[in-house]
Amino acid sequence: MKVALVPHHDGSALHVPEQRPSLGDIVPVYVRLPHDYPVEAVYARSVYDGEPRYAQAVVDHQDALEVWWRADLLVHNPDTRYRFLLDRGDGGHIWLHAGGLSDHDPTDATDFRLTTFGGPPAWVDDAVIYQIFPDRFARSGQVDLPAPEWALPAQWNDKVIDRGPQAGIQFYGGDLYGIADRLDYLVKLGVDVVYLTPFFPAASNHRYNATSFDQVDPHLGGDAALAALTAAAHQRGMRVIGDLTTNHSGDTHEWFRRAMTDPSSPEASYYYLTGDGGYVSWFDVPSLPKLNWSSPELRERILAVASRWLRQPYGLDGWRIDVANMTGRQGAEDHYHEAARALRGVVDGEKFLFAEHFHDYTADLPGDGWQGVMNYAGFAKPVWSWLTPYQRGPIIPGIPLPLRALPGERTARTMRAFAAGVPWSATNANVTLLSSHDSPRIRTFLGTAERVAVAAGLLFTYPGTPMMFMGDEIGIEGANGEDARVPMPWDDPVRFAEPTYDVYRELIALRRAHPALRNGGLRWLHAGPDVLLYLRESPEERLLILASRAPHTPLQLPAALVRDIPHNVYGGAHATLTDETLTLPADGPTFQVWSL
Amino acid sequence: MKVALVPHHDGSALHVPEQRPSLGDIVPVYVRLPHDYPVEAVYARSVYDGEPRYAQAVVDHQDALEVWWRADLLVHNPDTRYRFLLDRGDGGHIWLHAGGLSDHDPTDATDFRLTTFGGPPAWVDDAVIYQIFPDRFARSGQVDLPAPEWALPAQWNDKVIDRGPQAGIQFYGGDLYGIADRLDYLVKLGVDVVYLTPFFPAASNHRYNATSFDQVDPHLGGDAALAALTAAAHQRGMRVIGDLTTNHSGDTHEWFRRAMTDPSSPEASYYYLTGDGGYVSWFDVPSLPKLNWSSPELRERILAVASRWLRQPYGLDGWRIDVANMTGRQGAEDHYHEAARALRGVVDGEKFLFAEHFHDYTADLPGDGWQGVMNYAGFAKPVWSWLTPYQRGPIIPGIPLPLRALPGERTARTMRAFAAGVPWSATNANVTLLSSHDSPRIRTFLGTAERVAVAAGLLFTYPGTPMMFMGDEIGIEGANGEDARVPMPWDDPVRFAEPTYDVYRELIALRRAHPALRNGGLRWLHAGPDVLLYLRESPEERLLILASRAPHTPLQLPAALVRDIPHNVYGGAHATLTDETLTLPADGPTFQVWSL
Repeated sequence: MKVALVPHHDGSALHVPEQRPSLGDIVPVYVRLPHDYPVEAVYARSVYDGEPRYAQAVVDHQDALEVWWRADLLVHNPDTRYRFLLDRGDGGHIWLHAGGLSDHDPTDATDFRLTTFGGPPAWVDDAVIYQIFPDRFARSGQVDLPAPEWALPAQWNDKVIDRGPQAGIQFYGGDLYGIADRLDYLVKLGVDVVYLTPFFPAASNHRYNATSFDQVDPHLGGDAALAALTAAAHQRGMRVIGDLTTNHSGDTHEWFRRAMTDPSSPEASYYYLTGDGGYVSWFDVPSLPKLNWSSPELRERILAVASRWLRQPYGLDGWRIDVANMTGRQGAEDHYHEAARALRGVVDGEKFLFAEHFHDYTADLPGDGWQGVMNYAGFAKPVWSWLTPYQRGPIIPGIPLPLRALPGERTARTMRAFAAGVPWSATNANVTLLSSHDSPRIRTFLGTAERVAVAAGLLFTYPGTPMMFMGDEIGIEGANGEDARVPMPWDDPVRFAEPTYDVYRELIALRRAHPALRNGGLRWLHAGPDVLLYLRESPEERLLILASRAPHTPLQLPAALVRDIPHNVYGGAHATLTDETLTLPADGPTFQVWSL
Repeated sequence: MKVALVPHHDGSALHVPEQRPSLGDIVPVYVRLPHDYPVEAVYARSVYDGEPRYAQAVVDHQDALEVWWRADLLVHNPDTRYRFLLDRGDGGHIWLHAGGLSDHDPTDATDFRLTTFGGPPAWVDDAVIYQIFPDRFARSGQVDLPAPEWALPAQWNDKVIDRGPQAGIQFYGGDLYGIADRLDYLVKLGVDVVYLTPFFPAASNHRYNATSFDQVDPHLGGDAALAALTAAAHQRGMRVIGDLTTNHSGDTHEWFRRAMTDPSSPEASYYYLTGDGGYVSWFDVPSLPKLNWSSPELRERILAVASRWLRQPYGLDGWRIDVANMTGRQGAEDHYHEAARALRGVVDGEKFLFAEHFHDYTADLPGDGWQGVMNYAGFAKPVWSWLTPYQRGPIIPGIPLPLRALPGERTARTMRAFAAGVPWSATNANVTLLSSHDSPRIRTFLGTAERVAVAAGLLFTYPGTPMMFMGDEIGIEGANGEDARVPMPWDDPVRFAEPTYDVYRELIALRRAHPALRNGGLRWLHAGPDVLLYLRESPEERLLILASRAPHTPLQLPAALVRDIPHNVYGGAHATLTDETLTLPADGPTFQVWSL
């Protein structure tokens, strides 16, 4: 099957050399048209104080494959939306926007976006994040406390209780010193960032119902253990990210107790008290009273918390914001964007701020608030649906449907739809993932290590900041978020001999070796039922990535795409080059990367 | 060619009986699936404080054509986005949103929207607007003033100067009494709303560069003439809408003069003075200094102006806001939505507030500000491109392209894309138009009265508030906005015998006779290169509308769509009914409406 190239632009450095423009800058943007693509003129359309303006493009240069046009884009507003108008004469006009090509007039919703908000710190491009659920990663033996009163103590090898009231109180007793002890395991795997689910004291094993934001849970080793962990991580060139619940606290929280006992206290303004002893809580779960961002005192208090743990001696390198999408929203009130911007004001400079988000994040990522989100909608969900072998698998989080196998065309359309709505800096910062403590395990979704290897290939080569959940690398299973929170089986050497471990380690190494995988552009070449094909291109290199779930018709690319026979850098399969055509292998499941 | 029905919902009363919900309401919404459309379950997905929630739908009833499902939608936030999830079992899932059907996960940008902002007053549903450029409609003989100093006086039958510095100062001397004298002409035509381009004094014939907002231009008859005109209109059950420049004033404006001569005056805060005698102006046109909405004094002053002319004795029935899309926007500052909401606060109750807008208005129409916009992007432009016979016609306003004939599929996709982004109340209020003082004339775009008749058919049957530019009904021509501003040729009876006049009059009468044309839903049935086919459906009736630009393959619909042979209510052509199939005529250009 012949794959034809179409006009292309994305917001990466190859097409937008100035990645961090300032207001008033005029920056060149490049768009590439195949030699045989007829145009009479090319324009960049942008929006200036709400009104479109057109900058005519000129031919900048040509290569064997295509013609590079250049237009000058005026950065007049902080969030500049732009797209290209291809005037094809009597053939009418075509728009090239972040969603692809349209022969009708699109809205601006899928325009490319260039913002002056600066994006995340540079280290995020290179980061590979490892998510740790502190109760279940490792016990150090250094914390000598009886289990909390509310807890149901468990032995490390006990089976996880995955439903009912005991699920949240089953207590394994992992701690932060235990994590510090195991950092070299992570170094060997290749990850360099640890993201911890909450470490504040709480009346549950997941700690999303904090009783205080002013101390680290003594059962995790307390403040000293966090300081020791971040110091040990920083010593190894690693980073540590915390988890902050800005939407709610626990009903055991010291603020909430004060609010309930003293309606004249400042804390009473931190919540939505209904005056009759009731209060608004997250989805009516009474243990999770909702925080009220219309209260200036609450804002100040939360921002002080966010700031404090970023400073020494704790020196966290960023925050993941829990239930970010609901923060500040309550009926007719909407302080969401203000909340995100206020948190960004605190988590700035060399720190990373990303948001939990299960669904459409495109309105949330101009980049003045969150620098990225957990990319369930535009990565995890479409990948699950493409690679699962099931017609009725586990329930997909956030939607009342079982996971079902869907063809790759749908996968790619979903991935493109979400990438199209946000600036390139956000797509490239968005945290891509295959599992978390809130989802079934990728191994359970996909059934076999062979399919997990394809998914992991996508994880480490698709734009984003890849994050893995502890134990994914050794094939831990779990049918839902609770079931997935399995203590790391350190004493089981068989698990660590899983082929999946080597897949993860090699893919992380591949990512580290190739700048195009860390910040190169994304150019989709083909999506068929069983195969996805795309390029990652940076000023230094061009990589061709093929993921397949089953044998398929071989794909043929124009030979002009390469200078020589492509060099396979992952997967080991050969591509065949003739004068006209580059032919790719047609087996599957497989994951292959070539350097062109 | 067989036309198959697909699942359908739109925000009209047939599917959303509660058109003006309040916060906290639970409102039923209906979605229709053809009998042969397989589903296992149907859900309405909405967003609750930023988080999706799903309400399972149940079968409400069935008719010959399809199954009506009902879901209960919670109106928890002022702007509730929702769409339908059709669970097709092993066939995967399909989304039905305002953009159509998707087999991939869409963003929320094309969701249906239901808001608590209340929409425009009910009379807007029934309105047909006639746009008048006061200098060129009619002279009363009652205004006895010499031409202004800046003016180049013209005789009524002089040719319009359509370019260069004289275009803006050629002065014909029409006045508001002249309009009042001619209201019965408008009554006979069937229009019931007059929209006047600016009536404030200014140093130009278009008056978009006001020298004051505190009086009606004496050359138009002054304040008394406006009061007389609105009184005469109201007496006939007609309404009058003004035109307010909220983005800029003239450089001769009393506020601007004060600002420039006295930097310590309150008026100095009304503009963006640069301190060196310079100032920010609309697209660097020095005569149009930009108003500064960050100034609380400016806001108060403008709102007082907006309010004053709505009150007696002037009693305007609403405002059209000039350059609305740029109002309040200046580089890093963006007070646009605040400005729109503030103006809405003044133009409320029985008044109508609509915005000039040439391009993507979907982010601007939750309905808390403008109640509608001039629908160039989602109506005028796609209709021009579909019906023009030219490959290189006049330049389309706002885009550096000549008008070219494009196939109807593109037309429909553009119309659907823009309708999809806004609440139904806004689609139905949006001011649809074929010409204005800022565009070439529809007659010039389309070349023949026959094609104009098809365009006018769309104007009066597509959702929106139809507006015509004075003289469109008698086939006035004009190659650009200036050229289009032709004085009404009252003394030329040949012009008024144009077949176009009867087309407009009959279509307006058709609209008045059929509630489905005024507020019925819109269901696209087919878009081919040469033919567009849609339904307008209200609780009272169902109308089938066919527009064609050329002969085409006959369209065949399922007979279950009708109870009997459809009754033609416009155009005179017959549809043929057999047991299985309703077959429509295949000639063109033609415009036909049947009552089903």
